[in-house]
Amino acid sequence: MPRTAFFVSGRTGITAEMLGHSLISQFDDEVSFRRITLPYIDTPEKVEAALAQIREQARTDGCKPVVFSTFINEETRARFFIPEAVTLDMFETFIKPLEEELGVQSSHTAGRAHGIANFEEYQTRLDAVNYSMSHDDGGISRNLSDADIILIGVSRAGKTPTCLYLALQYGIKAANYPITPEDFAAHTLPRALMPLRNKLFGISISPERLAQIRHARKPDSQYASAEICKREVEEAELLMRQAGIPFLNTTSLSIEELATTIMHRTGMKRRVY
Amino acid sequence: MPRTAFFVSGRTGITAEMLGHSLISQFDDEVSFRRITLPYIDTPEKVEAALAQIREQARTDGCKPVVFSTFINEETRARFFIPEAVTLDMFETFIKPLEEELGVQSSHTAGRAHGIANFEEYQTRLDAVNYSMSHDDGGISRNLSDADIILIGVSRAGKTPTCLYLALQYGIKAANYPITPEDFAAHTLPRALMPLRNKLFGISISPERLAQIRHARKPDSQYASAEICKREVEEAELLMRQAGIPFLNTTSLSIEELATTIMHRTGMKRRVY
Repeated sequence: MPRTAFFVSGRTGITAEMLGHSLISQFDDEVSFRRITLPYIDTPEKVEAALAQIREQARTDGCKPVVFSTFINEETRARFFIPEAVTLDMFETFIKPLEEELGVQSSHTAGRAHGIANFEEYQTRLDAVNYSMSHDDGGISRNLSDADIILIGVSRAGKTPTCLYLALQYGIKAANYPITPEDFAAHTLPRALMPLRNKLFGISISPERLAQIRHARKPDSQYASAEICKREVEEAELLMRQAGIPFLNTTSLSIEELATTIMHRTGMKRRVY
Repeated sequence: MPRTAFFVSGRTGITAEMLGHSLISQFDDEVSFRRITLPYIDTPEKVEAALAQIREQARTDGCKPVVFSTFINEETRARFFIPEAVTLDMFETFIKPLEEELGVQSSHTAGRAHGIANFEEYQTRLDAVNYSMSHDDGGISRNLSDADIILIGVSRAGKTPTCLYLALQYGIKAANYPITPEDFAAHTLPRALMPLRNKLFGISISPERLAQIRHARKPDSQYASAEICKREVEEAELLMRQAGIPFLNTTSLSIEELATTIMHRTGMKRRVY
């Protein structure tokens, strides 16, 4: 049975997408959803066009689309509660109980969640991204002590995307530094990291998965061989254990799971929302 | 009046945070919220500890905390509806109408939204991040034609974070390429970009904001001077207009707004959710 989910918003649509995605992924086993995002629906003309598209989809599919919406404006929001669709609007449902408990009216201002409202937060985020970019893969040892956290692990374990996620989403200055065969030979963590031990967090991975990733990058290289991958992972984990560095295994964790677990375990606080 | 918002989840808590943040930012003018995320509440002990923390906070604040929760498990979810707090749970509210319309039961599986369920999607995301990292700031011209999009603009206009966001969140291979004084002198876009004109999207910025950002990076340099910034922005916009390249001004847009607007205007589709 084909179904369509619409994510509709007067602004970016990011909240509607995330809310809707969380909900429909609960039905993944039984229902296959086509996903359509309609962002920046902020004029009467765009409202009409969006409604026409939803109605047309209902006819094509032969069943009601699910519309996840986040309209602050009550009139616009009301327009999307149509018999041809099942509409679930976050504000419709949750703003009232919040207004009652808080004893104040909501501001009805669109774009608060993902706008540039707070310039200082925006700058914090930019600084974190710039920092993480320039401290990727041990790029610059200079200012490494400015890092909020330094992820360590073997090459291709998944340090970089996790750092970027921490920087972009949380405003955390996240550096990363490789553990290499030289370090295994010396039986010690890289010298540059010694004074920063309390900022280190390890990223490990299964040797099989590592070989697969390295193979995609450098086919049939020794670097990607099963033996080398196995040895590197074992030695890196040994070094981290000996040094008392906490580490996570990326093999079965998403970037979001890695990032949130690191935030949680280290007690770091978000700098931005 | 001090208030506390809790974001509570059996998994990452990302959906609860976004939902809650969207809602409470509607009350920003009147209520100042302390935000506490309690992720990975996945054992009876952690449930008890979280409930104790919420109750304690209610006593300290002298008013009810708002609890934004996303529990798939009905029993756990029910535990958080306590008289000492106002609890808003996304699944409690929205799963029922969805089950009714779809005619199937939800899977009640936690971690669907931000887990690694789909390995192929994860790989797409990693590839996009790697691509965008190695094609930052005109870094490699090689394989530039593999880009889904190439952001262009003067140095420090905000290309890099937007590219990284597109890669991480949407799995889009986003390169970026600077427009420099050399290009202004030649009255033309960089030669490497000529054959890729249909992939180009411009990022512009107000000269004042650009000077501020450049000044933070290289204090009192000519590069950061008001005159140079004004001239560069004017010339870059002129080049983009002449070449028919669409562009956005980052001065009043957040990274999310830039990214979603670019997706929307170009008609690119998310590769990952």
